[in-house]
Amino acid sequence: MSGVITVVAPVNIAVIKYWGKRDEELIIPLNDSVSATLDTNVMCAKTSVCVSPDFVKDEIWLNGRKESFTSPRLQNCLRGIKSRAAAERSVDDAFLSWKIHVCSENNFPTAAGLASSAAGYACLVSALAKLYKVKSDVSSIARLGSGSACRSVYGGFVHWHAGVKPDGTDSIATQIVDSSHWPQMRALILVVGDHRKKVSSTKGMKISKETSELLQYRITKCVPFRTEAICQAIRDKDFAKFAEITMKDSNQFHAICLDSYPPFAYLTATSMKIIDFVHKYNDICGEPRVAYTFDAGSNACLYLLEDEVPKVLGVIQSLFPSSTPDSFIKGLPARVEPVDAELETALSLHPEEKDSVKYVIHTKVGEGPSEVTDGSALLNDAGWPVNPIIE
Amino acid sequence: MSGVITVVAPVNIAVIKYWGKRDEELIIPLNDSVSATLDTNVMCAKTSVCVSPDFVKDEIWLNGRKESFTSPRLQNCLRGIKSRAAAERSVDDAFLSWKIHVCSENNFPTAAGLASSAAGYACLVSALAKLYKVKSDVSSIARLGSGSACRSVYGGFVHWHAGVKPDGTDSIATQIVDSSHWPQMRALILVVGDHRKKVSSTKGMKISKETSELLQYRITKCVPFRTEAICQAIRDKDFAKFAEITMKDSNQFHAICLDSYPPFAYLTATSMKIIDFVHKYNDICGEPRVAYTFDAGSNACLYLLEDEVPKVLGVIQSLFPSSTPDSFIKGLPARVEPVDAELETALSLHPEEKDSVKYVIHTKVGEGPSEVTDGSALLNDAGWPVNPIIE
Repeated sequence: MSGVITVVAPVNIAVIKYWGKRDEELIIPLNDSVSATLDTNVMCAKTSVCVSPDFVKDEIWLNGRKESFTSPRLQNCLRGIKSRAAAERSVDDAFLSWKIHVCSENNFPTAAGLASSAAGYACLVSALAKLYKVKSDVSSIARLGSGSACRSVYGGFVHWHAGVKPDGTDSIATQIVDSSHWPQMRALILVVGDHRKKVSSTKGMKISKETSELLQYRITKCVPFRTEAICQAIRDKDFAKFAEITMKDSNQFHAICLDSYPPFAYLTATSMKIIDFVHKYNDICGEPRVAYTFDAGSNACLYLLEDEVPKVLGVIQSLFPSSTPDSFIKGLPARVEPVDAELETALSLHPEEKDSVKYVIHTKVGEGPSEVTDGSALLNDAGWPVNPIIE
Repeated sequence: MSGVITVVAPVNIAVIKYWGKRDEELIIPLNDSVSATLDTNVMCAKTSVCVSPDFVKDEIWLNGRKESFTSPRLQNCLRGIKSRAAAERSVDDAFLSWKIHVCSENNFPTAAGLASSAAGYACLVSALAKLYKVKSDVSSIARLGSGSACRSVYGGFVHWHAGVKPDGTDSIATQIVDSSHWPQMRALILVVGDHRKKVSSTKGMKISKETSELLQYRITKCVPFRTEAICQAIRDKDFAKFAEITMKDSNQFHAICLDSYPPFAYLTATSMKIIDFVHKYNDICGEPRVAYTFDAGSNACLYLLEDEVPKVLGVIQSLFPSSTPDSFIKGLPARVEPVDAELETALSLHPEEKDSVKYVIHTKVGEGPSEVTDGSALLNDAGWPVNPIIE
């Protein structure tokens, strides 16, 4: 059999949002999007793969549980990498014919709505690319698994180009700048307690595409301008500009959800409270120092620079009291600066009820997928899960 | 002195929303809007006016309380009517020079966010028009008090034309059809408990105009088409078409609020629950039988035909339990049809917490302002408030 290849891959949080598919099957988006890739040391997916002539069928384990290998998205990714390997003649035909074992897990709760499928598919495709020795860009293959997964194939700040070709081969991700370009950039993910039944993003995108009159305008008139402007702001390390575009684009995406028919909403009262406090905080600072962005859920991701973290964490802690304050802030170590009387008065916001924000993940912009060789593979030397769940 | 003139005037609820002013001072809107005028027997403003050579100054009492007469909007309305009277030579100069007493009240809570200023200014201007014997259209004068007041000057279904002139003289309301045209039309106003601090519509419109990129598209591309289509649907009594446009336009207005910067939201979790149940109900019926619309607040107005009222009230009662069920439904008498097991299963919606809808007002499309001569004037024969609040 092959050796076991193990890869970790990051989540990414968009600042220009992907919403709507030009092609449902090939997952080609209606518009470009831009994201930051977040540090795999804080949040990551991990995938081990290996092939063997002894395996009788393709098998996959997700978070310890055996799952079906028949999912079209999974099949498309495997087929995509294999045909690329065949084209590149990177491995021989026998190797390509061997069955595969895949074992994958996230180090964060899948259900928390934290772009787990983006990290997962980027990880799978990166691991497969290593296994089959594919050298070319695999972002368009990761895209077949989950659209935004293509952005997790690179570190730093990433631009997913919608492309124009019907086959999606030009719908790829490229790196704008690597993670060392703007080392001060931090992200705080506020995980919001929310038990509503949500419209899935796949379904929501379809409804928006079919019914929102405003979406067409967003795609053709707003996003191209914003994409160019935010790429420039990132290259210039112009935080105020970056923040303004990020917030406006998040708002517009959620506006499109409401303009859809039937309408749907991902933002909750807690999300709106976060939005209000960020605007107030920025007003007090006299310039944007914090930017919020919300995906298809109520969790907020705040982008901000390193220097601002202690003060903003202080505000978050006092606005969103926790019943488990000791484990409220996770991820990178962080100092919390208590809110002084002046700021408290200026913000004039009343604390929310306890645990409306469940916890905060403190992280930063990080690198793309990377191979790990520290002995923490998820498949053993025989190619079977190290920690299977016995059911 | 003159005789006391007393007028009642209706509220109106828009189905194509007014959002954004072309001229702040003259209250000229960026786009046309369409509304239904609601029965004054259920909800109304009442205003008594009279002039006398003995009055030493212009005075106004609102809901029993003496208020300042210096408000520019009030001044603009009085000045507008007087100059029209002068142009029409409908009263002599002496009469025009006499000071005025105005006493006004609503028969519903002002704070409930139920378009009270529209009814109030339509009532004031209609009473002034009667007093000064103005015969021409006064909708453009009511507009100077509160934009949407111009629509309350007529009964039935009303179209407020944005107009193109800089002075606003062509920004007037016209009647599409009178209240007898579609006698089956009913409205249920769901008053939602909501203690959040809201962005006023004046402020919200300004933010949207200055910051929402989508608003321009709405104004130029969406509203003109919708306005024409809904006027036709009203003339054709095509409820399904009427309902679809009404819901889509409400949703788009709220989308614009979210697309504004900073964004603001009027819809609450309860509002979203109302939206969800209406869509589910319509799906079950196989066609739109109920339409929701929301103004700059969380209250819903449901439009529906008479035959549907008992069934929909049943659903509302079971979805939004009340701690005072005996006074839950106000307004026109209504039968409530208990929800049968089949519908309950099909709706699969869980009841909200008690009193998230405080009460429901059952009303219908009604007539425009009218003079009342039943002895219920708010000013006595000497021109002073009948029921002053002593403070």
